[in-house]
Amino acid sequence: MQKRQLGPCVTFFPQPTTLVSTVGNDGRKNVMTASWAGIVSKTPPTMAISLNKGRKSYQHIHETGDFVVNMVPASLVVEADYCGLRSGSDDDKFEQAGLVAADAQIVKSPLVDQCPLNVECRFVQEVEIGDYRLILGEIVEVNASEEAFASEGGMDARTFDPLTYLGGIREYWSLGDHVADAYKDGSKLFKKQDG
Amino acid sequence: MQKRQLGPCVTFFPQPTTLVSTVGNDGRKNVMTASWAGIVSKTPPTMAISLNKGRKSYQHIHETGDFVVNMVPASLVVEADYCGLRSGSDDDKFEQAGLVAADAQIVKSPLVDQCPLNVECRFVQEVEIGDYRLILGEIVEVNASEEAFASEGGMDARTFDPLTYLGGIREYWSLGDHVADAYKDGSKLFKKQDG
Repeated sequence: MQKRQLGPCVTFFPQPTTLVSTVGNDGRKNVMTASWAGIVSKTPPTMAISLNKGRKSYQHIHETGDFVVNMVPASLVVEADYCGLRSGSDDDKFEQAGLVAADAQIVKSPLVDQCPLNVECRFVQEVEIGDYRLILGEIVEVNASEEAFASEGGMDARTFDPLTYLGGIREYWSLGDHVADAYKDGSKLFKKQDG
Repeated sequence: MQKRQLGPCVTFFPQPTTLVSTVGNDGRKNVMTASWAGIVSKTPPTMAISLNKGRKSYQHIHETGDFVVNMVPASLVVEADYCGLRSGSDDDKFEQAGLVAADAQIVKSPLVDQCPLNVECRFVQEVEIGDYRLILGEIVEVNASEEAFASEGGMDARTFDPLTYLGGIREYWSLGDHVADAYKDGSKLFKKQDG
Protein backbone atom coordinates (compact mmCIF):
# COMPACT_ATOMS: atom_id res chain seq x y z
CA MET A 1 0.00 0.00 0.00
CA GLN A 2 1.36 3.42 -0.96
CA LYS A 3 2.11 5.42 2.20
CA ARG A 4 2.97 9.02 2.99
CA GLN A 5 5.27 9.86 5.92
CA LEU A 6 3.84 12.35 8.39
CA GLY A 7 6.93 12.58 10.60
CA PRO A 8 6.91 12.11 14.40
CA CYS A 9 3.44 13.24 15.49
CA VAL A 10 0.44 12.03 17.49
CA THR A 11 -1.81 11.02 14.57
CA PHE A 12 -3.46 7.82 15.74
CA PHE A 13 -7.02 6.53 15.88
CA PRO A 14 -9.61 5.43 16.76
CA GLN A 15 -9.45 6.81 20.29
CA PRO A 16 -12.17 6.94 22.94
CA THR A 17 -13.81 10.23 23.86
CA THR A 18 -14.00 10.47 27.63
CA LEU A 19 -14.74 13.01 30.32
CA VAL A 20 -12.48 12.67 33.35
CA SER A 21 -14.29 13.92 36.44
CA THR A 22 -12.61 14.92 39.69
CA VAL A 23 -13.16 16.96 42.84
CA GLY A 24 -10.72 19.12 44.80
CA ASN A 25 -10.22 19.31 48.54
CA ASP A 26 -12.21 22.56 48.34
CA GLY A 27 -15.22 20.61 47.06
CA ARG A 28 -15.06 22.11 43.56
CA LYS A 29 -15.79 19.55 40.88
CA ASN A 30 -14.11 19.51 37.48
CA VAL A 31 -14.53 17.66 34.23
CA MET A 32 -11.94 17.42 31.46
CA THR A 33 -12.13 15.94 27.97
CA ALA A 34 -9.58 13.16 27.43
CA SER A 35 -8.93 10.84 24.53
CA TRP A 36 -5.65 9.57 25.90
CA ALA A 37 -7.34 7.02 28.13
CA GLY A 38 -7.41 3.25 28.14
CA ILE A 39 -7.10 -0.04 29.94
CA VAL A 40 -3.54 -1.16 30.71
CA SER A 41 -3.91 -4.23 32.93
CA LYS A 42 -6.36 -6.89 34.01
CA THR A 43 -4.31 -7.93 37.09
CA PRO A 44 -5.26 -5.72 38.84
CA PRO A 45 -7.82 -3.93 36.60
CA THR A 46 -6.02 -0.69 35.77
CA MET A 47 -6.77 2.34 33.65
CA ALA A 48 -4.32 4.96 32.39
CA ILE A 49 -5.01 8.52 31.39
CA SER A 50 -2.48 11.08 30.25
CA LEU A 51 -2.82 14.79 30.86
CA ASN A 52 -0.78 17.97 30.98
CA LYS A 53 0.65 18.55 34.45
CA GLY A 54 -0.78 22.07 34.50
CA ARG A 55 -4.39 20.86 34.43
CA LYS A 56 -6.82 21.40 37.29
CA SER A 57 -7.70 17.70 37.02
CA TYR A 58 -4.10 16.77 37.73
CA GLN A 59 -4.19 18.84 40.92
CA HIS A 60 -7.50 17.25 41.96
CA ILE A 61 -6.21 13.70 41.42
CA HIS A 62 -3.33 14.43 43.76
CA GLU A 63 -5.61 15.99 46.35
CA THR A 64 -8.20 13.20 46.55
CA GLY A 65 -6.27 10.26 45.15
CA ASP A 66 -9.00 9.30 42.69
CA PHE A 67 -10.77 10.07 39.41
CA VAL A 68 -13.57 8.79 37.19
CA VAL A 69 -13.32 8.08 33.45
CA ASN A 70 -16.73 8.60 31.82
CA MET A 71 -17.49 7.25 28.32
CA VAL A 72 -19.03 10.00 26.20
CA PRO A 73 -22.09 9.10 24.08
CA ALA A 74 -22.44 10.75 20.65
CA SER A 75 -25.39 12.76 21.99
CA LEU A 76 -22.98 14.66 24.28
CA VAL A 77 -20.42 15.56 21.61
CA VAL A 78 -20.85 19.34 21.88
CA GLU A 79 -20.58 19.24 25.68
CA ALA A 80 -17.49 17.03 25.50
CA ASP A 81 -15.75 19.27 23.00
CA TYR A 82 -16.64 22.29 25.12
CA CYS A 83 -14.95 20.70 28.16
CA GLY A 84 -11.78 20.36 26.09
CA LEU A 85 -11.83 24.02 25.05
CA ARG A 86 -12.33 25.52 28.51
CA SER A 87 -10.09 25.37 31.59
CA GLY A 88 -11.28 24.11 34.96
CA SER A 89 -9.23 26.85 36.57
CA ASP A 90 -11.57 29.45 35.10
CA ASP A 91 -14.95 27.78 34.81
CA ASP A 92 -17.38 25.43 36.50
CA LYS A 93 -17.61 23.22 33.44
CA PHE A 94 -20.21 20.90 34.97
CA GLU A 95 -22.62 23.79 35.27
CA GLN A 96 -21.77 25.54 32.05
CA ALA A 97 -22.04 22.39 29.93
CA GLY A 98 -25.21 21.25 31.68
CA LEU A 99 -23.55 18.11 33.00
CA VAL A 100 -24.91 16.48 36.14
CA ALA A 101 -22.54 15.22 38.86
CA ALA A 102 -23.71 12.02 40.56
CA ASP A 103 -22.16 10.30 43.57
CA ALA A 104 -19.74 7.50 42.77
CA GLN A 105 -20.00 4.16 44.58
CA ILE A 106 -16.51 4.15 46.04
CA VAL A 107 -14.39 7.17 45.08
CA LYS A 108 -14.80 10.84 46.06
CA SER A 109 -14.77 12.05 42.44
CA PRO A 110 -18.24 12.38 40.90
CA LEU A 111 -19.67 10.47 37.94
CA VAL A 112 -20.99 12.37 34.92
CA ASP A 113 -24.57 11.17 35.18
CA GLN A 114 -25.39 11.47 31.46
CA CYS A 115 -22.48 9.18 30.52
CA PRO A 116 -23.64 5.54 30.30
CA LEU A 117 -20.32 4.01 31.43
CA ASN A 118 -18.31 5.36 34.37
CA VAL A 119 -15.05 3.82 35.53
CA GLU A 120 -14.07 4.68 39.11
CA CYS A 121 -10.30 4.71 39.62
CA ARG A 122 -8.00 5.04 42.60
CA PHE A 123 -4.68 6.71 41.83
CA VAL A 124 -1.75 4.27 41.94
CA GLN A 125 1.25 5.87 40.28
CA GLU A 126 2.34 8.34 37.63
CA VAL A 127 4.96 8.44 34.91
CA GLU A 128 6.56 11.69 33.76
CA ILE A 129 6.66 12.15 29.98
CA GLY A 130 7.75 15.67 29.01
CA ASP A 131 4.96 18.07 29.99
CA TYR A 132 2.51 15.18 30.43
CA ARG A 133 1.80 12.84 33.28
CA LEU A 134 0.59 9.32 32.64
CA ILE A 135 -1.70 8.55 35.56
CA LEU A 136 -2.38 4.93 36.45
CA GLY A 137 -5.52 4.20 38.42
CA GLU A 138 -6.76 0.91 39.80
CA ILE A 139 -10.34 0.34 38.69
CA VAL A 140 -12.43 -0.08 41.83
CA GLU A 141 -15.92 0.02 40.27
CA VAL A 142 -17.54 0.17 36.82
CA ASN A 143 -21.04 1.62 36.44
CA ALA A 144 -23.02 0.82 33.27
CA SER A 145 -26.39 2.09 32.11
CA GLU A 146 -29.19 -0.23 33.20
CA GLU A 147 -30.75 0.25 29.75
CA ALA A 148 -27.90 -1.77 28.19
CA PHE A 149 -29.22 -4.89 29.92
CA ALA A 150 -32.81 -4.60 28.65
CA SER A 151 -32.47 -7.38 26.08
CA GLU A 152 -30.93 -10.80 26.63
CA GLY A 153 -27.39 -11.81 25.69
CA GLY A 154 -25.23 -9.34 27.61
CA MET A 155 -24.75 -5.61 27.18
CA ASP A 156 -26.25 -3.97 24.09
CA ALA A 157 -23.46 -1.85 22.61
CA ARG A 158 -25.87 0.34 20.65
CA THR A 159 -27.46 1.75 23.82
CA PHE A 160 -24.07 3.22 24.88
CA ASP A 161 -23.67 5.04 21.53
CA PRO A 162 -19.92 5.54 22.19
CA LEU A 163 -18.19 8.49 20.56
CA THR A 164 -14.90 7.86 18.81
CA TYR A 165 -12.21 10.48 18.39
CA LEU A 166 -9.85 10.51 15.44
CA GLY A 167 -6.63 12.03 16.73
CA GLY A 168 -4.71 13.90 14.04
CA ILE A 169 -7.87 14.33 11.93
CA ARG A 170 -9.65 16.06 14.82
CA GLU A 171 -13.06 14.56 14.11
CA TYR A 172 -15.64 12.84 16.30
CA TRP A 173 -17.46 9.84 14.80
CA SER A 174 -20.31 7.61 15.95
CA LEU A 175 -20.29 3.80 15.82
CA GLY A 176 -21.34 2.11 12.60
CA ASP A 177 -22.00 -1.61 12.40
CA HIS A 178 -21.16 -4.64 14.48
CA VAL A 179 -18.78 -6.40 12.09
CA ALA A 180 -17.43 -9.32 14.15
CA ASP A 181 -17.09 -10.93 17.56
CA ALA A 182 -13.76 -10.97 19.35
CA TYR A 183 -12.02 -14.18 20.45
CA LYS A 184 -14.31 -15.96 18.00
CA ASP A 185 -14.45 -14.85 14.36
CA GLY A 186 -10.68 -15.13 13.93
CA SER A 187 -11.08 -18.90 14.27
CA LYS A 188 -12.36 -18.93 10.67
CA LEU A 189 -8.69 -18.86 9.70
CA PHE A 190 -8.05 -21.98 11.83
CA LYS A 191 -10.53 -23.93 9.77
CA LYS A 192 -8.97 -22.81 6.50
CA GLN A 193 -5.63 -24.27 7.64
CA ASP A 194 -7.17 -27.50 8.83
CA GLY A 195 -9.26 -28.02 5.67
CA MET B 1 -29.41 7.71 34.71
CA GLN B 2 -30.03 4.31 36.28
CA LYS B 3 -26.77 2.37 36.53
CA ARG B 4 -25.75 -1.17 37.31
CA GLN B 5 -22.46 -1.89 39.08
CA LEU B 6 -20.19 -4.38 37.31
CA GLY B 7 -17.50 -4.48 39.99
CA PRO B 8 -13.78 -3.95 39.32
CA CYS B 9 -13.26 -5.12 35.72
CA VAL B 10 -11.83 -3.94 32.40
CA THR B 11 -15.11 -3.05 30.67
CA PHE B 12 -14.30 0.13 28.78
CA PHE B 13 -14.80 1.34 25.22
CA PRO B 14 -14.38 2.40 22.49
CA GLN B 15 -10.85 1.08 22.09
CA PRO B 16 -8.69 0.95 18.96
CA THR B 17 -7.99 -2.36 17.25
CA THR B 18 -4.30 -2.54 16.44
CA LEU B 19 -1.72 -5.03 15.31
CA VAL B 20 1.64 -4.58 17.01
CA SER B 21 4.42 -5.81 14.72
CA THR B 22 7.92 -6.70 15.85
CA VAL B 23 10.98 -8.69 14.84
CA GLY B 24 13.36 -10.75 16.94
CA ASN B 25 17.14 -10.86 16.82
CA ASP B 26 16.68 -14.16 14.95
CA GLY B 27 14.88 -12.31 12.15
CA ARG B 28 11.49 -13.87 12.92
CA LYS B 29 8.66 -11.38 12.62
CA ASN B 30 5.60 -11.37 14.85
CA VAL B 31 2.28 -9.62 14.95
CA MET B 32 -0.02 -9.34 17.97
CA THR B 33 -3.53 -7.93 18.33
CA ALA B 34 -3.69 -5.12 20.89
CA SER B 35 -6.50 -2.83 21.96
CA TRP B 36 -4.62 -1.46 24.94
CA ALA B 37 -2.78 1.08 22.84
CA GLY B 38 -2.86 4.85 22.70
CA ILE B 39 -1.10 8.19 22.63
CA VAL B 40 0.22 9.40 25.98
CA SER B 41 2.28 12.51 25.19
CA LYS B 42 2.87 15.13 22.55
CA THR B 43 6.22 16.28 24.02
CA PRO B 44 7.83 14.09 22.84
CA PRO B 45 5.24 12.19 20.73
CA THR B 46 4.80 8.98 22.70
CA MET B 47 2.66 5.90 22.39
CA ALA B 48 1.90 3.31 25.06
CA ILE B 49 0.88 -0.30 24.62
CA SER B 50 0.24 -2.82 27.35
CA LEU B 51 0.87 -6.51 27.00
CA ASN B 52 1.40 -9.64 29.05
CA LYS B 53 5.07 -10.13 29.89
CA GLY B 54 4.95 -13.69 28.53
CA ARG B 55 4.26 -12.57 24.96
CA LYS B 56 6.68 -13.10 22.09
CA SER B 57 6.18 -9.42 21.19
CA TYR B 58 7.47 -8.39 24.61
CA GLN B 59 10.63 -10.39 24.02
CA HIS B 60 11.07 -8.86 20.57
CA ILE B 61 10.68 -5.30 21.85
CA HIS B 62 13.49 -5.92 24.30
CA GLU B 63 15.68 -7.48 21.64
CA THR B 64 15.39 -4.75 19.01
CA GLY B 65 14.25 -1.78 21.09
CA ASP B 66 11.36 -0.93 18.79
CA PHE B 67 7.84 -1.82 17.62
CA VAL B 68 5.15 -0.65 15.21
CA VAL B 69 1.50 0.00 16.07
CA ASN B 70 -0.68 -0.65 13.00
CA MET B 71 -4.29 0.61 12.82
CA VAL B 72 -6.58 -2.21 11.71
CA PRO B 73 -9.20 -1.43 9.05
CA ALA B 74 -12.60 -3.15 9.30
CA SER B 75 -11.73 -5.21 6.21
CA LEU B 76 -9.02 -7.01 8.25
CA VAL B 77 -11.20 -7.90 11.24
CA VAL B 78 -10.92 -11.68 10.86
CA GLU B 79 -7.13 -11.50 10.46
CA ALA B 80 -6.85 -9.22 13.50
CA ASP B 81 -8.96 -11.47 15.69
CA TYR B 82 -6.95 -14.46 14.51
CA CYS B 83 -3.71 -12.78 15.63
CA GLY B 84 -5.22 -12.39 19.10
CA LEU B 85 -6.17 -16.06 19.31
CA ARG B 86 -2.80 -17.51 18.27
CA SER B 87 0.59 -17.24 19.94
CA GLY B 88 3.69 -15.97 18.16
CA SER B 89 5.69 -18.63 19.98
CA ASP B 90 3.89 -21.30 17.98
CA ASP B 91 2.99 -19.73 14.65
CA ASP B 92 4.20 -17.40 11.93
CA LYS B 93 1.10 -15.26 12.16
CA PHE B 94 2.11 -12.97 9.29
CA GLU B 95 2.08 -15.91 6.92
CA GLN B 96 -0.93 -17.70 8.36
CA ALA B 97 -3.12 -14.60 8.39
CA GLY B 98 -1.96 -13.51 4.94
CA LEU B 99 -0.45 -10.30 6.29
CA VAL B 100 2.38 -8.64 4.36
CA ALA B 101 5.42 -7.28 6.22
CA ALA B 102 6.84 -4.07 4.72
CA ASP B 103 10.01 -2.24 5.69
CA ALA B 104 9.57 0.60 8.17
CA GLN B 105 11.24 3.96 7.52
CA ILE B 106 13.26 4.08 10.73
CA VAL B 107 12.75 1.09 13.03
CA LYS B 108 13.74 -2.55 12.54
CA SER B 109 10.20 -3.83 13.20
CA PRO B 110 8.09 -4.28 10.05
CA LEU B 111 4.90 -2.47 9.10
CA VAL B 112 1.75 -4.45 8.35
CA ASP B 113 1.38 -3.33 4.75
CA GLN B 114 -2.44 -3.72 4.58
CA CYS B 115 -2.92 -1.39 7.57
CA PRO B 116 -3.41 2.21 6.38
CA LEU B 117 -1.78 3.85 9.43
CA ASN B 118 1.49 2.60 10.95
CA VAL B 119 3.15 4.24 13.93
CA GLU B 120 6.86 3.49 14.31
CA CYS B 121 7.99 3.56 17.94
CA ARG B 122 11.34 3.34 19.70
CA PHE B 123 11.17 1.74 23.15
CA VAL B 124 11.72 4.25 25.96
CA GLN B 125 10.63 2.68 29.24
CA GLU B 126 8.25 0.18 30.80
CA VAL B 127 6.03 0.09 33.84
CA GLU B 128 5.25 -3.14 35.69
CA ILE B 129 1.54 -3.67 36.43
CA GLY B 130 0.84 -7.17 37.74
CA ASP B 131 1.40 -9.63 34.87
CA TYR B 132 1.35 -6.79 32.34
CA ARG B 133 4.00 -4.41 31.10
CA LEU B 134 3.07 -0.93 29.95
CA ILE B 135 5.54 -0.16 27.18
CA LEU B 136 6.22 3.46 26.29
CA GLY B 137 7.61 4.17 22.84
CA GLU B 138 8.69 7.44 21.32
CA ILE B 139 6.98 7.91 17.97
CA VAL B 140 9.71 8.33 15.36
CA GLU B 141 7.60 8.12 12.19
CA VAL B 142 3.93 7.86 11.19
CA ASN B 143 2.98 6.31 7.84
CA ALA B 144 -0.48 7.01 6.40
CA SER B 145 -2.17 5.64 3.30
CA GLU B 146 -1.63 7.92 0.31
CA GLU B 147 -5.29 7.33 -0.62
CA ALA B 148 -6.39 9.39 2.41
CA PHE B 149 -4.98 12.51 0.75
CA ALA B 150 -6.84 12.10 -2.56
CA SER B 151 -9.36 14.84 -1.83
CA GLU B 152 -8.67 18.32 -0.50
CA GLY B 153 -9.01 19.38 3.13
CA GLY B 154 -6.70 17.01 5.00
CA MET B 155 -6.95 13.28 5.61
CA ASP B 156 -10.19 11.55 4.69
CA ALA B 157 -11.14 9.45 7.73
CA ARG B 158 -13.43 7.17 5.73
CA THR B 159 -10.54 5.78 3.66
CA PHE B 160 -8.88 4.42 6.84
CA ASP B 161 -12.07 2.55 7.85
CA PRO B 162 -10.78 2.14 11.44
CA LEU B 163 -12.02 -0.79 13.46
CA THR B 164 -13.21 -0.12 17.00
CA TYR B 165 -13.11 -2.68 19.78
CA LEU B 166 -15.62 -2.72 22.59
CA GLY B 167 -13.77 -4.14 25.59
CA GLY B 168 -16.05 -6.01 27.96
CA ILE B 169 -18.65 -6.55 25.21
CA ARG B 170 -16.06 -8.26 23.00
CA GLU B 171 -17.38 -6.86 19.75
CA TYR B 172 -15.70 -5.17 16.79
CA TRP B 173 -17.54 -2.25 15.18
CA SER B 174 -16.96 -0.06 12.14
CA LEU B 175 -17.16 3.73 12.11
CA GLY B 176 -20.54 5.34 11.61
CA ASP B 177 -20.96 9.04 10.90
CA HIS B 178 -18.83 12.13 11.33
CA VAL B 179 -20.82 13.90 14.03
CA ALA B 180 -18.64 16.89 14.98
CA ASP B 181 -15.26 18.58 14.68
CA ALA B 182 -12.93 18.73 17.67
CA TYR B 183 -11.65 22.00 19.13
CA LYS B 184 -14.49 23.69 17.26
CA ASP B 185 -18.06 22.51 17.76
CA GLY B 186 -17.85 22.87 21.54
CA SER B 187 -17.70 26.63 21.03
CA LYS B 188 -21.45 26.55 20.36
CA LEU B 189 -21.79 26.54 24.14
CA PHE B 190 -19.67 29.73 24.36
CA LYS B 191 -22.20 31.57 22.25
CA LYS B 192 -25.11 30.40 24.35
CA GLN B 193 -23.47 31.96 27.41
CA ASP B 194 -22.67 35.21 25.63
CA GLY B 195 -26.16 35.57 24.12
